[in-house]
Amino acid sequence: MKPRPAASAAAKRVVVAESTAAASGSAAAGSAAAAGRLFVVATPIGNLSDVTLRALEILGSVPLVAAEDTRHTRRLFARHGLATRLVSYHARNAAARAPELLAHLRGGADLALVTDAGTPLVSDPGGELVAAWAAEDGPVVPIPGPSAVLAALVASGIAGPRWSFEGFLPRSGRERRTRLARVADDPRTTVLFEAPGRIGATLADLATACGPDRRAAVCRELTKIHEEVRRGSLAELAAAAVGGAIVARGEVVIVVGDATGGSAHRAPGAATTEAGGEEALARARAEVESLVAGGAARGDAARRVAAATGIPRRRLYGAEEAG
Amino acid sequence: MKPRPAASAAAKRVVVAESTAAASGSAAAGSAAAAGRLFVVATPIGNLSDVTLRALEILGSVPLVAAEDTRHTRRLFARHGLATRLVSYHARNAAARAPELLAHLRGGADLALVTDAGTPLVSDPGGELVAAWAAEDGPVVPIPGPSAVLAALVASGIAGPRWSFEGFLPRSGRERRTRLARVADDPRTTVLFEAPGRIGATLADLATACGPDRRAAVCRELTKIHEEVRRGSLAELAAAAVGGAIVARGEVVIVVGDATGGSAHRAPGAATTEAGGEEALARARAEVESLVAGGAARGDAARRVAAATGIPRRRLYGAEEAG
Repeated sequence: MKPRPAASAAAKRVVVAESTAAASGSAAAGSAAAAGRLFVVATPIGNLSDVTLRALEILGSVPLVAAEDTRHTRRLFARHGLATRLVSYHARNAAARAPELLAHLRGGADLALVTDAGTPLVSDPGGELVAAWAAEDGPVVPIPGPSAVLAALVASGIAGPRWSFEGFLPRSGRERRTRLARVADDPRTTVLFEAPGRIGATLADLATACGPDRRAAVCRELTKIHEEVRRGSLAELAAAAVGGAIVARGEVVIVVGDATGGSAHRAPGAATTEAGGEEALARARAEVESLVAGGAARGDAARRVAAATGIPRRRLYGAEEAG
Repeated sequence: MKPRPAASAAAKRVVVAESTAAASGSAAAGSAAAAGRLFVVATPIGNLSDVTLRALEILGSVPLVAAEDTRHTRRLFARHGLATRLVSYHARNAAARAPELLAHLRGGADLALVTDAGTPLVSDPGGELVAAWAAEDGPVVPIPGPSAVLAALVASGIAGPRWSFEGFLPRSGRERRTRLARVADDPRTTVLFEAPGRIGATLADLATACGPDRRAAVCRELTKIHEEVRRGSLAELAAAAVGGAIVARGEVVIVVGDATGGSAHRAPGAATTEAGGEEALARARAEVESLVAGGAARGDAARRVAAATGIPRRRLYGAEEAG
């Protein structure tokens, strides 16, 4: 996923040191110019080789790493020969720990934040630290990498052009029903987390809310040895889970097709003439505008993008420029 | 992001070869057992060091890589010493090219799919290939890595526990208004892509739809030298964009706070007592259930998870087990 075809992105030989030395825009604007950088580092969701070169570089060069479970992160460190000092930062000590971590950053020292798996966000401990440091206009530098949400969308084979992440549904009650109804009506693909022992119940509730024929996928143990992806209707998957054909073990991500039902098992090329074509056109137009903003003549920009994408040059002029 | 605290995940020293040799569940169930694996490989969104060890391993070992723009991917290959054969696969040749790529997979040979940047999904060319191969029960193996959507959520500092990705808004018309209204009402954080020349117009429309005070962030050139993150209200950001204080260049991702307004600038620790606490509890309970499913006694499982998370043991028994 990306905002536009980044034809010029890889042309720059951006090295680790240069890029991470870049201050965020807000840091340059105020007193935080000398503040430490908060690197938010994505780590593996299972397979320990799913770590980026830059993540290893950052984790090895900062003076301190705040980790959800330091024992867990030590396994990653041991695998890759890292020995940086670790401090625990999890849901239960966040309120007590945050002040000292913010003081560390205010003092000008860098800090890396990791969770046990994937990309640290608000549903993980540490999200509040990012929000607090961002609120002080401190530089927050994302080091992108694995995410169970995106891995599941990819593996599902039913991801539409737009999607929602719903986290865990409440286990019962009105809020669960409200959120099930929201999934049912959503024109976007929905991604849910679920506990292994509750897959059957949740798939059955989803089948009731969305209809039994809605396309879905159950992803289990993504990136691990026993990685499993089951695809089918919600009714089929619910039956498989209740009947024990889907093992109730490991991390589970459920992907539910969108309410239009149009994204499942679409023939190759079909998307190109639907949303896919519009997206490609929008991105190509964005590329033209970016080149123009960068100083290129519009005609030249359109010609280059047309050559790169195969989209006719006249279609690359937006409505306001069309004549 | 992850389904639960994966205490056991990193304990397994999963090596690249073992993990990628794992067939997907559906592959084992039918005629696709001898079929090739379709590796869907995430690549950098800017900084060429944002690539995982496993992505490099896969891209170097498959016989063929389908790439959105082969010239673009060649720069990544050159940087990391890769020389695998490349074939172009983009929006305009997808319909013509898909049959030969599917034939390659049916013949038992592996194939890696990449786009110009980030995690290949349906809004990128190649999504249809994944859908078609999944529809044949072919093994689809996600190799997780960078995503501009998640990097922007992290950098924004305003991501809530749930979020939506809306792609590009249409440039005008009823569909644009419908989607703006959907963003305004969404109880989730929303992520949007926009062309650099249109940031001002879209931020202004978002301010009208969501109200001028809604928290937001504009992320530009993420992971690159000129990475910039601007945070503020939609009205402030619209004014900055229209006034030229936000440079209209490069890839732009807009993050819009949720309709509740509660996720921006929250004090450290606050989330722990709201959604964050519920999420942590849900994940801890999932961990207990997973251990039980794996053969542990419930009491032992609860004790271990309580020790790891600091959550009182009695809270780890779900409603149905509580007594």
